[in-house]
Amino acid sequence: MEAKLQVGVLGFGTVGSGVIHILEEHQEKISQVTGYHISVKKVLVRNLEKNRRYETKGFELTTNPSDVLDDPEIAVVVEVMGSITTAREYILQALKAGKHVVTANKDLIALHGDELVAVAQANKCDLFYEASVAGGIPILRTIVNSLAADKIQKVMGIVNGTTNFMLTKMTTEKKSYEEVLAEAQELGFAESDPTNDVDGIDAARKMVIMTRLAFGMNVDLDNVETNGIRGISPEDIEVAYQLGYKIKLVGTAEETNGMVNVNVGPVLLPKAHPLAGVNYENNAVFVTGAAVGETMFYGPGAGELPTATSVVSDLITVAKNSRLGTNGNAFNSYKHETKHTPKEQVFSKYYLRLTMDDKTGTFLKLTQIFAEAGVGFDKILQQPYDDFTATVVIVTHSTSQAQLEQAIARVTDEPEMQMLAKYSVVEG
Amino acid sequence: MEAKLQVGVLGFGTVGSGVIHILEEHQEKISQVTGYHISVKKVLVRNLEKNRRYETKGFELTTNPSDVLDDPEIAVVVEVMGSITTAREYILQALKAGKHVVTANKDLIALHGDELVAVAQANKCDLFYEASVAGGIPILRTIVNSLAADKIQKVMGIVNGTTNFMLTKMTTEKKSYEEVLAEAQELGFAESDPTNDVDGIDAARKMVIMTRLAFGMNVDLDNVETNGIRGISPEDIEVAYQLGYKIKLVGTAEETNGMVNVNVGPVLLPKAHPLAGVNYENNAVFVTGAAVGETMFYGPGAGELPTATSVVSDLITVAKNSRLGTNGNAFNSYKHETKHTPKEQVFSKYYLRLTMDDKTGTFLKLTQIFAEAGVGFDKILQQPYDDFTATVVIVTHSTSQAQLEQAIARVTDEPEMQMLAKYSVVEG
Repeated sequence: MEAKLQVGVLGFGTVGSGVIHILEEHQEKISQVTGYHISVKKVLVRNLEKNRRYETKGFELTTNPSDVLDDPEIAVVVEVMGSITTAREYILQALKAGKHVVTANKDLIALHGDELVAVAQANKCDLFYEASVAGGIPILRTIVNSLAADKIQKVMGIVNGTTNFMLTKMTTEKKSYEEVLAEAQELGFAESDPTNDVDGIDAARKMVIMTRLAFGMNVDLDNVETNGIRGISPEDIEVAYQLGYKIKLVGTAEETNGMVNVNVGPVLLPKAHPLAGVNYENNAVFVTGAAVGETMFYGPGAGELPTATSVVSDLITVAKNSRLGTNGNAFNSYKHETKHTPKEQVFSKYYLRLTMDDKTGTFLKLTQIFAEAGVGFDKILQQPYDDFTATVVIVTHSTSQAQLEQAIARVTDEPEMQMLAKYSVVEG
Repeated sequence: MEAKLQVGVLGFGTVGSGVIHILEEHQEKISQVTGYHISVKKVLVRNLEKNRRYETKGFELTTNPSDVLDDPEIAVVVEVMGSITTAREYILQALKAGKHVVTANKDLIALHGDELVAVAQANKCDLFYEASVAGGIPILRTIVNSLAADKIQKVMGIVNGTTNFMLTKMTTEKKSYEEVLAEAQELGFAESDPTNDVDGIDAARKMVIMTRLAFGMNVDLDNVETNGIRGISPEDIEVAYQLGYKIKLVGTAEETNGMVNVNVGPVLLPKAHPLAGVNYENNAVFVTGAAVGETMFYGPGAGELPTATSVVSDLITVAKNSRLGTNGNAFNSYKHETKHTPKEQVFSKYYLRLTMDDKTGTFLKLTQIFAEAGVGFDKILQQPYDDFTATVVIVTHSTSQAQLEQAIARVTDEPEMQMLAKYSVVEG
């Protein structure tokens, strides 16, 4: 008879439902691949009476976490309840009881991943979290296994579906930020408080997780310069398009000389760049390796079934490890001392948009400020904004972040100039 | 002291050189990840005197295969010599001597994969071949591990860099097949006898390998309908573009009701399809899963270092397995009875281009032929070719392969009609 692997699920939202659905639907293939009949024994819910999307037969619903965490027959706990404090507590309890854990909780892994990994190892348990970054795209396992042979130089990700949906709509339908936000909220792509998405916080957490795996470095969220999409105007999108670019919210982690820089912000991508073609709620991660060159992994970044697929692929790995007796080996063993690239050594081209009083001498002053900071211009467009004001768009040559900030600080000091937008520009 | 894992390399061409280079360059990361110092002990070459791309120090060159295959200190054999008969023989010998094998040889794996996998398992040895499909893209491991949770429905691949380079050039520079072939040969992308590439044979072999992993089915090359790019004219590319499509050489493996259809041929892809943006020598594999939806894996399909990266990632897996004592487990344990979808159940839209005598009644006859075969028209364009002949371009509605072939057989029978092109059309 086939061995059984029993699972306890914490949370019965969309991802939890998806996991249960996939385990049932793909039972035959899963048991052929793992040699286990993987089944859900108990599901922790907040409310026993709520209507469920799928039938709740074959397993038990409970509102008491101990029913799951203290059940000796449950070998694996799947945490898909979200939140940080409670989820951390339950996961620690599960690991200490010798249960393997699969989680989709990016916030938790970004903030407490190191602690949880250490506890998992101390208890010889598996801890996997593929679903925490880019939903259905198996990017974490790809970085850890398939790109292990290579020296990864740069990871660029469109890892937030909500903002990518909004920017795609702004670009293709020429709508305003406010209009597309309302649309995204209506469709359920954005929450009523969209802060985490639109301010880039969600993307920053995912970049922290990828940085740990790709470069072996632990970067604090505080050290990730994070800008969102609130400030992007239809004008920026229009001008960028005319210059040959699309604007996307991109998280970038780049290593230079053993130091890493991680940031999230709007980026101008050449239209032919593979990331520029990633539209609507899709995600993609573009990885540059010293040997492999440029690769990209594309797919749905969220959604019930895509995210659940990643959770179940982690469950399959737990099952394979159980069969081989190899549970408890760290998912990622690549570690490096964490060092941050100083601003003087972080280089990029930039797109800048500002307005200034349309009077003799102001343009000269602007060019002097940039010249004195050592920031050269690649392109510059000036056009009247109204009778008294001109809009100026600048694309700089590659410059250090320190130099750019120096120039911008001086522009900000000038009462006749207003800086409206500052985005990185990626070259083809 | 760190454990040693010694490697014998068969072949010292570009990929062999790349493997040696990457093992040296990324030694620190590789040993951190595996716990092994992986080093090359011996390399089998054809000619000892030839100048090498990299220094040949730290290992021995030999022209005698037994020096590698009978060396008890060599734990892993990397086969990057190409060819079929000799490579098969050496690999069998290595496996029977208890050595793990990593190969980049798609021809061999497509033709004799099943036999080699069985011998590897009987001898408790690892046999990996990630580099055999799509060079630097870790597509095989992704299908086997990360998509194991899902039911894969369809795999579409641009898996031949040479033809993709040629079609990109034909599209962007409006050159003829002959011109771009000459260019590809000059750049080293195409061989002096380009048959394997331009006739789709290379792509068909890769599709056989992916079909085995994605659907657990063993398809013979004879059962893969294979068409190449020789017949594609600048007119086809131009007309397709005007209709909103790009022409790419695509391998498709699709499962329907437990049966599989695998084919290779020119395909019209909507311009917004992710595969349509894959240009020049790049490869990409687009996978549709029941749960995950659409994902795509993009990267360099060939080249010294990208291909060598995949070989080294396989070596890393061998090393990890050695540390955990888990060598010899089949790379892929998903198996299904092989059944082929009958032509009556293989559906697609088609693009057809033909010329016909420009006289009253011919067009009527053409439409009658298609109507009688039950093939409907989605789009139809007719324009004069010369004073006596008209060119007709048809995009059909979705139709079965059997119906289409029936219609085409009748067109072929008509002396006043010449069928020039027949390509599948993918809808967005």
